[in-house]
Amino acid sequence: MYRSHNCGELRASDINTEVKLSGWVQKVRDKGFMVWVDLRDRYGITQLIFDAERTPKAIFEKAQKLGREYVIQVQGKVIERASKNPNILTGDIEILVSELTILNAALLPPFTIEDETDGGEELRMKYRYLDIRRNPVKNSLIFRHKVTQEVRNYLSKEGFIEVETPYLIKSTPEGARDFVVPSRMNEGQFYALPQSPQTFKQLLMVGGMDKYFQIVKCFRDEDLRADRQPEFTQIDCEMAFVEQEDILNAFEGLTRHLLKEINGIEVAQFPRMLYDDALRLYGNDKPDIRFGMQFGELNQVTQHKDFGVFNNAELVVGIAVPGANSYTRKEIDNLIDWVKRPQIGALGMVYCRCNEDGTYKSSVDKFYDQTDLAKWAEITQAQSGDLICVLSGETNKVRAQLSALRMVLAERLGLRNPKEFAPLWVMDFPLLEWDEETERYHAMHHPFTSPKPGQLELLKTNPGEVKANAYDLVLNGNEIGGGSIRIHDKKTQALMFDYLGFTEEESKAQFGFLMNAFEYGAPPHGGLAFGLDRLVAILGGQETIRDFIAFPKNNSGRDVMIDAPAPIDDEQLKELNLKLNLKS
Amino acid sequence: MYRSHNCGELRASDINTEVKLSGWVQKVRDKGFMVWVDLRDRYGITQLIFDAERTPKAIFEKAQKLGREYVIQVQGKVIERASKNPNILTGDIEILVSELTILNAALLPPFTIEDETDGGEELRMKYRYLDIRRNPVKNSLIFRHKVTQEVRNYLSKEGFIEVETPYLIKSTPEGARDFVVPSRMNEGQFYALPQSPQTFKQLLMVGGMDKYFQIVKCFRDEDLRADRQPEFTQIDCEMAFVEQEDILNAFEGLTRHLLKEINGIEVAQFPRMLYDDALRLYGNDKPDIRFGMQFGELNQVTQHKDFGVFNNAELVVGIAVPGANSYTRKEIDNLIDWVKRPQIGALGMVYCRCNEDGTYKSSVDKFYDQTDLAKWAEITQAQSGDLICVLSGETNKVRAQLSALRMVLAERLGLRNPKEFAPLWVMDFPLLEWDEETERYHAMHHPFTSPKPGQLELLKTNPGEVKANAYDLVLNGNEIGGGSIRIHDKKTQALMFDYLGFTEEESKAQFGFLMNAFEYGAPPHGGLAFGLDRLVAILGGQETIRDFIAFPKNNSGRDVMIDAPAPIDDEQLKELNLKLNLKS
Repeated sequence: MYRSHNCGELRASDINTEVKLSGWVQKVRDKGFMVWVDLRDRYGITQLIFDAERTPKAIFEKAQKLGREYVIQVQGKVIERASKNPNILTGDIEILVSELTILNAALLPPFTIEDETDGGEELRMKYRYLDIRRNPVKNSLIFRHKVTQEVRNYLSKEGFIEVETPYLIKSTPEGARDFVVPSRMNEGQFYALPQSPQTFKQLLMVGGMDKYFQIVKCFRDEDLRADRQPEFTQIDCEMAFVEQEDILNAFEGLTRHLLKEINGIEVAQFPRMLYDDALRLYGNDKPDIRFGMQFGELNQVTQHKDFGVFNNAELVVGIAVPGANSYTRKEIDNLIDWVKRPQIGALGMVYCRCNEDGTYKSSVDKFYDQTDLAKWAEITQAQSGDLICVLSGETNKVRAQLSALRMVLAERLGLRNPKEFAPLWVMDFPLLEWDEETERYHAMHHPFTSPKPGQLELLKTNPGEVKANAYDLVLNGNEIGGGSIRIHDKKTQALMFDYLGFTEEESKAQFGFLMNAFEYGAPPHGGLAFGLDRLVAILGGQETIRDFIAFPKNNSGRDVMIDAPAPIDDEQLKELNLKLNLKS
Repeated sequence: MYRSHNCGELRASDINTEVKLSGWVQKVRDKGFMVWVDLRDRYGITQLIFDAERTPKAIFEKAQKLGREYVIQVQGKVIERASKNPNILTGDIEILVSELTILNAALLPPFTIEDETDGGEELRMKYRYLDIRRNPVKNSLIFRHKVTQEVRNYLSKEGFIEVETPYLIKSTPEGARDFVVPSRMNEGQFYALPQSPQTFKQLLMVGGMDKYFQIVKCFRDEDLRADRQPEFTQIDCEMAFVEQEDILNAFEGLTRHLLKEINGIEVAQFPRMLYDDALRLYGNDKPDIRFGMQFGELNQVTQHKDFGVFNNAELVVGIAVPGANSYTRKEIDNLIDWVKRPQIGALGMVYCRCNEDGTYKSSVDKFYDQTDLAKWAEITQAQSGDLICVLSGETNKVRAQLSALRMVLAERLGLRNPKEFAPLWVMDFPLLEWDEETERYHAMHHPFTSPKPGQLELLKTNPGEVKANAYDLVLNGNEIGGGSIRIHDKKTQALMFDYLGFTEEESKAQFGFLMNAFEYGAPPHGGLAFGLDRLVAILGGQETIRDFIAFPKNNSGRDVMIDAPAPIDDEQLKELNLKLNLKS
């Protein structure tokens, strides 16, 4: 037996007990006549004491030679600590060691195993097994476990059945790129890894499973942006015989349960917002509503003056930045530079100071008088002391630009409190979205999403205006889940594929099994999927997901710890009936 | 709202309630003046009644036209049933329908959606979504969910943390073949899908996670035998600071918990058997100990007579088949033919009848007298009325043959009661096994398994005799789990790789990250993995796993429902820097 107790559980009540502990050496303090060692494991830290008088000499000397991160086992007696440490739970006691075994020595770690480490991102990833010893990472992984357990227990209690769907499925060109897996036994053929279990969960509904969920890995071979992983985890859910309202209630229930059990926060009914309103008021479809700064559209009060920039703009829109009239000219210039960065892409920014005395001072005073500017203030709900920032241009672009500005200013003003949780349903997404590159409409959610009742006809004439039975759950400015009511009859599904540019042969080859299934008694159904990595990070008060993933990949999709991907043997390639076709 | 109740919950106490139900038409009985419909959903069946007198005419006529598996919604009043059906929970009531909506029509299903179906295996797999509507499959999937929930809740309560390990990892030639995934972003390189999260769980131990588990998909590109899937699910577990005894206790606890909670069966401490004894007494390493028929080795009492077959055999071994003296000559000949089938491969079988009067009659009476045969009976523990079956030949082969015979006879004799559970630990597996094909030793478990203390030296002289700290958990003749205490120091690990024929470069390229990790303070650790598919099937009283997998693949690794794997676009291949290299 390696231990009688772990390093986090001994208390004053254990004094005089003989114990055995195992763990890592966190720290050694050697005062010559006395050596203290902080012994660490997953559960905490316990102080060991070696004493020139009371400890056998050989053991005392061995203790003096212990290095950081050595794995040791000790036996000894729990004694009262001379100077107690109220910061740790074991701070009242220490162990007077009588036996010491070095279970494994350790090289000096390449970065310090402390909450605040000196290791850079890449180094920590290469030695992720050491990084995981650090509390911030270890606790994030334990937190993730706690969240998934809550999710599973809640959904199980609500009658959902977790069903495992296959990982080796079929590639479909719709949506993002698939990762594919060559089949050795089926020459020239490939499996694909699922981007989501979408069609399988729909088939489970056709199969009468009624309420399904699965916490499941999904895969997308996309060019990676920061904080996006080629493999990610979904809480995937589907229900039969439901309307949109049933789904919203079911998963609002789950989210409310998590906020309560995990964060100790009670949230009232989640507000709901139409997609169109989210874009109009916040410039994007996942607004952070922990704070205001709603968009005010200024076309009516700015155009038809002599300011050509605004007159020629499709949209003139502003936000009132609370208290930002205090910004210096230089600070405002910095803001202007910020929105003009290529990543944001604005051509410029007009601003208007709302002075404490009720007057206004704008960067376009030449064109707009105090009465005009008072209207700006009214529409953007600006108060004295605020700064109104105004962007103009093509609607979609300018909304995205102002949204980015709103978020960065809110961050700067401390309005994005990670301990505050503001969930929001965004509803009635468009069914289709125009893709500039391929010059055709794509399904915004996926091709199985149903249009709003009665809007199917619009597909022919105004496809971009058709709204879908699709909804996103947004938390603190992040999309944490999204779903839809699905199409459940073959005719509508065939029509959708047709509008999306599939030939009949293509849709049959790729989704024939689903359309067949719809002919054998498919119930109305719909669902939702949460992005677990992000959900966990946000509940944990963070916005980056990496610390909540045990072994994440870097932005090139590499695991730098195991050094994957890697070349494979020629023999393996041959067995798979493949040849490399390298460009370089 | 599609329903106020499901089809399994209405009782006599609901009589006179107005309800709304949705589901599938299981059956329509049309008596002309009265139509009964069995409405089915996941939860049960509720009888609907349409009555020429009380039901509006249009609805009555619509009901008459309902087909099997139509999806309908009805509204109506719960009334008392004239002839009650005690076999179903809703048997006291029926619904007098006032409104009927056909939500989706259905083609005639290709096989009957009944517990006993007329559909063959391949057809059921092609229409798996219909197969899942059948109780045996539906209940198996729900049963699987229940088992995994129990596993997760038990292990969580015991302090285990579920950590997700990556699916896109690195290919290693050791063990079975990997499925590989070409990387588009890393030209000419491949990920591999994990055969198990082995190295990652060990790194989690190095990372101080202490107690880990994961219910996780694993992948093996093997030529499939019946009942083996290219993707399968493991309950993967690992613990730090443990000896073998700690692991056995931990997972015996889990298994006992499952047997109690799932099957309502209390099992005392699991018996333990050495690997060598399992082979000697049962001819294989996963003995079914629900019944006897232990092997009796007969070399000493059969050799040095004039029967050359036995004299030349490495092993002569028999079993006593209870009550089988009643077998006719023809039945025994059939047994002999059975063991001579190429799949079994015995050259013949000697038998000895144990008559009720205490005499013996063997097929080799020419060589053995009553005294000899009495010894056979003594050694095989045969009683009057039994039949002793004796095989002979090369030890390993004859053991496998007799083991197969023992199992088939036990099956025939009804000794393999699926409601009885006999768990067994098999311990001290060999570290290495000889591979005839490559003419070298392979790791029997995997190359991370530690040898028994003090046996490392034997590796040089008698590698085949080195025993490992490795154990299997066997249930009713099936291996449901296996594991080992791992090597946790770099030196021993390097030695192991060396003995397994890895060059230093190879072991560094493939497992360098693990050996590096061992240098930074690796704790002693070990673990176990359960095969979930099989575990669930056995707890569910079955031996075939397919009904416990929602969407299984066939023996060619194909999903016949979605028709995968399939060819991919040339464009996709090009992006992946690959060319097909077809043999045909």
